[in-house]
Amino acid sequence: MAVHRSPLAPERFPDLPPLSGVRLATRACEIHYRARSDVCLVELAPGTSVAGVFTRSLTASAPVLWCRKALSGRRARALVINSGNANAFTGAAGTRSVARVVDATARRLRCRKTEVFMASTGVIGEPLPDERLVGALARLQGALAAEPWEAAAAAIMTTDTYPKGATRQAEIGGRTVTLNGIAKGSGMIAPDMATMLAFVFTDAKIPGATLQALLEPAADMSFNSITVDGDTSTSDTLLLFATGQAKHRRVAGAEEPALNGLRAALDDLLCDLAQQVVRDGEGAQKFVTIRVSGAASRRAARRIGLAIANSPLVKTAIAGEDANWGRIVMAVGKAGEKADRDRLSIRIGGIEVARDGQVAPGYDEAPVARHMTGREIEIEVDVGVGRGRATVWTCDLTHGYIDINASYRS
Amino acid sequence: MAVHRSPLAPERFPDLPPLSGVRLATRACEIHYRARSDVCLVELAPGTSVAGVFTRSLTASAPVLWCRKALSGRRARALVINSGNANAFTGAAGTRSVARVVDATARRLRCRKTEVFMASTGVIGEPLPDERLVGALARLQGALAAEPWEAAAAAIMTTDTYPKGATRQAEIGGRTVTLNGIAKGSGMIAPDMATMLAFVFTDAKIPGATLQALLEPAADMSFNSITVDGDTSTSDTLLLFATGQAKHRRVAGAEEPALNGLRAALDDLLCDLAQQVVRDGEGAQKFVTIRVSGAASRRAARRIGLAIANSPLVKTAIAGEDANWGRIVMAVGKAGEKADRDRLSIRIGGIEVARDGQVAPGYDEAPVARHMTGREIEIEVDVGVGRGRATVWTCDLTHGYIDINASYRS
Repeated sequence: MAVHRSPLAPERFPDLPPLSGVRLATRACEIHYRARSDVCLVELAPGTSVAGVFTRSLTASAPVLWCRKALSGRRARALVINSGNANAFTGAAGTRSVARVVDATARRLRCRKTEVFMASTGVIGEPLPDERLVGALARLQGALAAEPWEAAAAAIMTTDTYPKGATRQAEIGGRTVTLNGIAKGSGMIAPDMATMLAFVFTDAKIPGATLQALLEPAADMSFNSITVDGDTSTSDTLLLFATGQAKHRRVAGAEEPALNGLRAALDDLLCDLAQQVVRDGEGAQKFVTIRVSGAASRRAARRIGLAIANSPLVKTAIAGEDANWGRIVMAVGKAGEKADRDRLSIRIGGIEVARDGQVAPGYDEAPVARHMTGREIEIEVDVGVGRGRATVWTCDLTHGYIDINASYRS
Repeated sequence: MAVHRSPLAPERFPDLPPLSGVRLATRACEIHYRARSDVCLVELAPGTSVAGVFTRSLTASAPVLWCRKALSGRRARALVINSGNANAFTGAAGTRSVARVVDATARRLRCRKTEVFMASTGVIGEPLPDERLVGALARLQGALAAEPWEAAAAAIMTTDTYPKGATRQAEIGGRTVTLNGIAKGSGMIAPDMATMLAFVFTDAKIPGATLQALLEPAADMSFNSITVDGDTSTSDTLLLFATGQAKHRRVAGAEEPALNGLRAALDDLLCDLAQQVVRDGEGAQKFVTIRVSGAASRRAARRIGLAIANSPLVKTAIAGEDANWGRIVMAVGKAGEKADRDRLSIRIGGIEVARDGQVAPGYDEAPVARHMTGREIEIEVDVGVGRGRATVWTCDLTHGYIDINASYRS
């Protein structure tokens, strides 16, 4: 099945600069796909620290279980990623596959096993042909280079229609540091990380525990605030590596003011990548931003936002360019969070549609209907009980989603 | 848009016998639809008791709020139902509309206001033209008769493609009693009642509190165990009326052995109606039964079942006739209930697909693929941690769902 580049895609892949301490290589190993790169090896300089956030699925994949374990060492020297096979629900054989890839990579890069991270994405329940990964390591190592960021982003794609990357700079104590990130994901996208892989690299020198403290809130405001279909993957992995090659002064705790710039850049970069994932949502024709205010807490606001974003009826109404705000009310009602029906207000495209629990006085549907015909849809909901705010991003639910997912394995 | 009768529909509407103490009438009032009946009046004999279960939506409709209040009296003399307009999110005007219809009905039937129940289903957020209902009451009353069950089931339809009814008999102390039920619903169907209206009538003589105690568990095993799209309606209403016209001996508590037959008949009738709703799921091409076992509790089993049943990826795989059990694993993982990944087993169409957390030894996809081409799909999942069991019912997610919901209001 031919799938075209998403109409919501950015114009082109951004220019990711070389990043001191990171070298990448990709290769076609026929894990599942034919005639395309499907394996990526990343080599990291000695001294690289690492932080990670993973799926909360109770049926997490073998690579996720390995990464969680390896993360306790807080050190990384290598990352191996494959697409086409998730190595999930593969039992003891899946665990052995990870062990073989990790062992071979550690031997080749002369590092500890716990310094080797692995991520896999693709079909669930089929044995990973790990011998093809192991057999390709020598050539991958020989091809390592500082430049191939776009190739790496392409190698980790599954149903994605375009490679996803982002770069930011920040200052720490007057010295510039760089962050480069790549991500994949377009279906099975929901909070708790979905079938989403994202890898962020910086040359900053940050202790592992501090890196973790920076990553978790940033993940909440980005990858945990997007949804395509509400399905949570067994493989979601977000890893942040800091090579420590930049020559800035030493930093310790995440709350140091010296890290404010880096924190903002990380937040921004993760939001960029997360939104790129939504913009590649399977079948997506419209990018939807949902801002919830007036909730009991930020957490409550996010749950309400996600109830709206995950509602098939809201998503199909958007696909049909129908300003059907009644379905938004329905979704607020089912979120299970406090809301005042008689103070609820809704704006679509900045235009007040409902106020105080009923249609806005003098509501004219025409400008809202025009907004609905665009690619970028803005929905604002105030639930009238408190000061909690959150923003979530999603896409519409279209025939394209059905086309893609009713024939994924064929 | 022409929508054809669901391919999963029963062959015909069942023969519902007259039921002592119940008379019905329907009429075309142009609430929203043109040239079809959209209002139903049911008159109930003096002494009728009533029980009810309603949506848990926090943005419940005005009629739901009224019914909850009226229910405390435990007595009913009339039920007014309209389709085409849900009278939800209509503010104080919506409350006044209900009051006007209830007042007029109570005057006409010479009963208390709290003996008049009302249910509305259809578009959210538009004022209910209550004067059309009130204006039609005299003619509706004049047309009351014991027979028009199918007409009543048809009058309450919205996107339904066929009217839904069921009838059962039971014995209480050697005397036969009858239960007749009608229901509507095909989208916005999820636990906590969805946009689902169901009304069940019996000639048994049962105190209101006992009736409520019979209804709640029966609702849990039927209407709260189905899902079409996971969206919860603002209007879900299930009412059970007992006219007390049957000449059986007196009963009191719900646990009396004399009520065992009635309880079984009620459970069976509600399951029948609930499954008819799923069989009319918007765009449904396949009826799916999901049996979960080995969970920590019945509640946990139902949550796991619903996670599978609500997963867009599972539902599209079924639409595509793809025995993609990996997506079932994914859904189990996201349910948030205890499951043992390495003891998980899955059967599709009675054939073992996965065992002990991996593909079943010697698994042959051919017979499973054949099963997937049928109209009735059976999925069994054992999560390997306890003895909790539950069955849930759903349908596939198809292009038809998108067609219907991307143009509902047009």
